[in-house]
Amino acid sequence: MKTYRNLARDKWPQLTKRPTSNTENLVQLAKQVFTDVDREGDRALRKYTKQFDNVELGSIRISQKEIEDQAQKLDSKTKTAIDIAYRNIYEFHAKQLTSLESPVAVQSGVVCWREIRPIDRVGLYVPGGSAPLVSTVLMLGVPAKIAGSRQVILATPPDKNGTISPAICYAALKVGITNIVRIGGMQAIAAMTLGTESVLAVDKLFGPGNQYVMAAKQYAERYGVASDMPAGPSEVLVVADQSAYPEFVAADLLSQAEHGPDSQVVLLTTNQTTATDIQKEIECQLATLPRKDIAIKALVNSFCIIFDDISTAIDFANSYAPEHIILSIRRARSTSKRINNAGSVFLGNYSPESAGDYASGTNHTLPTNGWARSFSGLSVESFVRRMTFQKLTKPGLKKLGTAIKTLAETEGLDAHKRAITIRFQKDKEK
Amino acid sequence: MKTYRNLARDKWPQLTKRPTSNTENLVQLAKQVFTDVDREGDRALRKYTKQFDNVELGSIRISQKEIEDQAQKLDSKTKTAIDIAYRNIYEFHAKQLTSLESPVAVQSGVVCWREIRPIDRVGLYVPGGSAPLVSTVLMLGVPAKIAGSRQVILATPPDKNGTISPAICYAALKVGITNIVRIGGMQAIAAMTLGTESVLAVDKLFGPGNQYVMAAKQYAERYGVASDMPAGPSEVLVVADQSAYPEFVAADLLSQAEHGPDSQVVLLTTNQTTATDIQKEIECQLATLPRKDIAIKALVNSFCIIFDDISTAIDFANSYAPEHIILSIRRARSTSKRINNAGSVFLGNYSPESAGDYASGTNHTLPTNGWARSFSGLSVESFVRRMTFQKLTKPGLKKLGTAIKTLAETEGLDAHKRAITIRFQKDKEK
Repeated sequence: MKTYRNLARDKWPQLTKRPTSNTENLVQLAKQVFTDVDREGDRALRKYTKQFDNVELGSIRISQKEIEDQAQKLDSKTKTAIDIAYRNIYEFHAKQLTSLESPVAVQSGVVCWREIRPIDRVGLYVPGGSAPLVSTVLMLGVPAKIAGSRQVILATPPDKNGTISPAICYAALKVGITNIVRIGGMQAIAAMTLGTESVLAVDKLFGPGNQYVMAAKQYAERYGVASDMPAGPSEVLVVADQSAYPEFVAADLLSQAEHGPDSQVVLLTTNQTTATDIQKEIECQLATLPRKDIAIKALVNSFCIIFDDISTAIDFANSYAPEHIILSIRRARSTSKRINNAGSVFLGNYSPESAGDYASGTNHTLPTNGWARSFSGLSVESFVRRMTFQKLTKPGLKKLGTAIKTLAETEGLDAHKRAITIRFQKDKEK
Repeated sequence: MKTYRNLARDKWPQLTKRPTSNTENLVQLAKQVFTDVDREGDRALRKYTKQFDNVELGSIRISQKEIEDQAQKLDSKTKTAIDIAYRNIYEFHAKQLTSLESPVAVQSGVVCWREIRPIDRVGLYVPGGSAPLVSTVLMLGVPAKIAGSRQVILATPPDKNGTISPAICYAALKVGITNIVRIGGMQAIAAMTLGTESVLAVDKLFGPGNQYVMAAKQYAERYGVASDMPAGPSEVLVVADQSAYPEFVAADLLSQAEHGPDSQVVLLTTNQTTATDIQKEIECQLATLPRKDIAIKALVNSFCIIFDDISTAIDFANSYAPEHIILSIRRARSTSKRINNAGSVFLGNYSPESAGDYASGTNHTLPTNGWARSFSGLSVESFVRRMTFQKLTKPGLKKLGTAIKTLAETEGLDAHKRAITIRFQKDKEK
């Protein structure tokens, strides 16, 4: 972990810049997969699943019975953990759309308001890999359920036997999802974009994934299908002063570093001792970490900066815009008010990122790669739209008419003006 | 205007599909413009402004004095119209972020909450063309102001003399914008993405534009800069029954058709007479329309469907997902509750689209091209993010710890688990 001391502000941009990856070549692959899935439907899905996952698929959609049978196989300890996480995530997200907006009478006879509508059809992607990402099912499924999306489909790659793990099935049932298809990768995204015999076409795609999945989600935009947010490698930034426990901070940094070799880990401290102690702890804890090789690679991209004061450290953090920020400092609460750019903020020595990743209730689908400057993390809002409505009375429109006509004239749009004048030419009543 | 009668549902997809435009070739041009602006800054902006707008630029940024001098030239009638529109738009948008969310104590010792932060730096693009788009300044500027974005820049192409119109300057001052640059097209988007000597780099881009501007906004994503929403040609769908006035509906349809030759206009009625009367009125009103040639071209892409009942018409409208929908029908209010996919809804005979385009208070920046299925129109929310926060006490984390550890184990992430266990190995107190 490279360490800088009081790094001057003009040097910040080179450290806040994320490593870029070239995805141009993936566009060609996406084009091919989408074209095949569009033409051949399920047949293409079977072909790609054989090719990429080495699995001969039977039925693509999993029957309700299979989901239930799989879910029952889950051990009770994991069931309880999922139940607790579900309850907390539900509790926190359920508060997100409670505000009912009243209609606004902007002037006499002119009333405008907004109404919330869930997105009709949503597609949740849960990546495969060495272990079932059960937390992803909860983080995507709970807000979809609260929003009230009418049709929810979950796509996830099958294991070697063509099945979906008990944990995924249990969590899916928990959030009320019964439409599960065993498809992963680009072909899963293409299928949910275009629809096939077995797969529902959706309006918006959600969920993490590798660079293939991400390229496919971007490609789906050409077909009018939206995505939750742009993605990149996961990140954590920890701000630590002398009140921090070096072993806690080291553990938090490593829990990010184990995600993948491209994860970024940033440590900001106010003194050399804290920096040194934490880095020693990292070395020490690394030794016994199962995903040590991954973590070591991630640490190569990572860095530590020692600043004179917390205030400058927070300025740097805002400039970096981390996905997660942990404040292991005195007066964490008051300092947190100065954080402008971050996905999620963890306060104090007992709020590790793991808590938010799994069970405290906040969503773990967060903007990475600097996107925290312009995106929020996933929430119930990600699954709804707000439509505007207006109702003008005849006198209301008459009163507002002059302003509308003048502005239409200024913009040279005569038919816009006429839509007003024609309504007052004859004095019809109905 | 082609007319269908009781079009079967399996024929809907071909009519709800929008004409696609191929923008692949624009990516190359965007790449060149972005590369030039990145390398040469203002010099590139001058070069492209000469090339595309045929204007030799002096200073790129407009001085405060020039803005004020220009604004003063505006006639008082237009000033009043802008004042009225501003007040209504402000009034409506100011109500959008008033709900303060309380922290949620998801369980004892675990508190989560969200806080709102404005996006730091936003770029508003106001297209040029034959007339100043003063309404765009208000529709982008008002929510930016309410959100509290710290830095707001407005880019708009210069007229032949290199100046910006009095109306734009007046509206900009009204919404508190004093950073205006006279740059249009792809080079404006590139400049606000990358920053130059005269132009502020931003976190998010807003505003309409032609296909060049749209391609540039998409290209900006590669540099980590977000955009408000994908764009396409403007659209209106009118549902009319016998209570509608044919001349009003015709005027509303034409006010959309005059936008551009690629605008789409859809009419749904419940009887032949209404359909015939409206189409006759269109013919009649077309004759005296200054932008007749544009409207005629738009009408070629447009269509009318006569359905047996309003309910089926609304199903079609939801499937089409129009940018604007006007309900010129009896019981418009109760019917509007069934509309799921639309940008903005206009109720009754005296709520023309023109009202929402200019002055009723709703935002006119709306999802087109079917994006209403997944996107909301522009609002104060478009200019903010909601960050999540969490604070766990030691007992709170201890209680939640088992669930976190179990889920981390299920996902095979050992360091995530250790971030919990390490906190309870020694019983430190601080």
